[in-house]
Amino acid sequence: MNPRHDDYPHVGGMRYGTGVPLIPTAAISTNGADLLSKTLKESPNLTFYFKQSCETLPDAKSYNVVGEIKGSEKPDEIIVVGGHIDSWDLAEGAQDDGAGCMQSIEVLRLFKALGVKPKRTIRAVMFMNEENGLRGGVQYADLAKKNNEKHMAAVESDAGGFTPRGFGIVGTPEQRAKVMPWKPLLAPYGLLEIGAGGGGADIGPLAQSGTVLFGFKPDSQRYFDYHHTAVDNFEVVSQRELELGAASMAALIYLLDQYGL
Amino acid sequence: MNPRHDDYPHVGGMRYGTGVPLIPTAAISTNGADLLSKTLKESPNLTFYFKQSCETLPDAKSYNVVGEIKGSEKPDEIIVVGGHIDSWDLAEGAQDDGAGCMQSIEVLRLFKALGVKPKRTIRAVMFMNEENGLRGGVQYADLAKKNNEKHMAAVESDAGGFTPRGFGIVGTPEQRAKVMPWKPLLAPYGLLEIGAGGGGADIGPLAQSGTVLFGFKPDSQRYFDYHHTAVDNFEVVSQRELELGAASMAALIYLLDQYGL
Repeated sequence: MNPRHDDYPHVGGMRYGTGVPLIPTAAISTNGADLLSKTLKESPNLTFYFKQSCETLPDAKSYNVVGEIKGSEKPDEIIVVGGHIDSWDLAEGAQDDGAGCMQSIEVLRLFKALGVKPKRTIRAVMFMNEENGLRGGVQYADLAKKNNEKHMAAVESDAGGFTPRGFGIVGTPEQRAKVMPWKPLLAPYGLLEIGAGGGGADIGPLAQSGTVLFGFKPDSQRYFDYHHTAVDNFEVVSQRELELGAASMAALIYLLDQYGL
Repeated sequence: MNPRHDDYPHVGGMRYGTGVPLIPTAAISTNGADLLSKTLKESPNLTFYFKQSCETLPDAKSYNVVGEIKGSEKPDEIIVVGGHIDSWDLAEGAQDDGAGCMQSIEVLRLFKALGVKPKRTIRAVMFMNEENGLRGGVQYADLAKKNNEKHMAAVESDAGGFTPRGFGIVGTPEQRAKVMPWKPLLAPYGLLEIGAGGGGADIGPLAQSGTVLFGFKPDSQRYFDYHHTAVDNFEVVSQRELELGAASMAALIYLLDQYGL
């Protein structure tokens, strides 16, 4: 959905509760919905007809994309930073979630450019197929468990590449309490909203193994101007806002790496 | 100036210190400046020539635009909310400062729409000629003094119609201390940055009569993408962000009106 009146349908998944009749669904723009309601109301004898040709095809193989900087002291403790590489196919998916992918790569680049050698392994993950069932995130967590990998923390950016505002934390009260003393260190970057809640869809499955999750919180006002629409293209991302987000994530990950949880 | 590389010159005023030679100045885009520097460096025998035809014409009459809701209990105590109605002439001046003008009018509309009858007089002022010498702001303060008007507070929006972040306050420590207990009331709107500093150019001249000044602080990252350029047009303003700013200003003015300073 969408807080403004425009002509861009916002697509998305539909779930049905048990016992609920499975009616067909389609995305329609806010202007389109208003026009349709008005027309049907004004012309009670009008018949509205629409035909859908969508279908679910068999699964196809796809991959998560992973890159990392090996930790210098505790290489077996992993901090994940990620976004998802798939998008709805109306557009490029620049805000959802190209921005999060680029920011995750940028975190590694910033560490390298600054000559910071992390103690722990920092791993950028572009998760596949978030939009249609979280397949990449589920598979990643399953593999991590199978391989006995220890994921200390995971940071996700999947709310757009807008001006940074803070991080939501999913963990125990004790784990959150370890982060709170860092607030004054993050405040100068405009990261004022730091507290419980957040996380991220792709990193969510890691929580069952005790990984602490951090959801990057950018300014949220324009996200649903673009989210899942034909206008979610490169041009709607502000380079400066995107870079500020990546720098904010790098700052948090630096603290996580230095002080642990 | 401008934090990004693009083709839009950002115009502005030029001031000279005493004893400094008065060299001609012109605005040039960041891309244009890079190209010019590179070309001159690579071709030392190249002669660069530019001609300016600008001139200062005699003053012409112009006006501030003022509307108000008369106070029900203390009509002689005035709270001003304003922006400036002039802009650099390359574009519409939508962010600088059409946004501030519309938000100031919107504050009055919100009071009326909500049926809030303010105790004090709430006055929306669109100041004329901020860009070339602050003439409207100076004249407004002079007239207020001459007419013995008591201006308790003045709120200005002149940093663009972006997502609200807070207010800067110009007043005595005692006056600021009266505002601080309102922080929890403003926080739910995302108004987290409330403290000393700010104010606004147009309301600045009121300070000498003891008026407390409030500068509306929106998110600042995109302002200089547009400020004083040919792209500062209606399309670059987000309606939602603009409205959130107006609502934030109305919330502050409601508190100022209810509790005084």
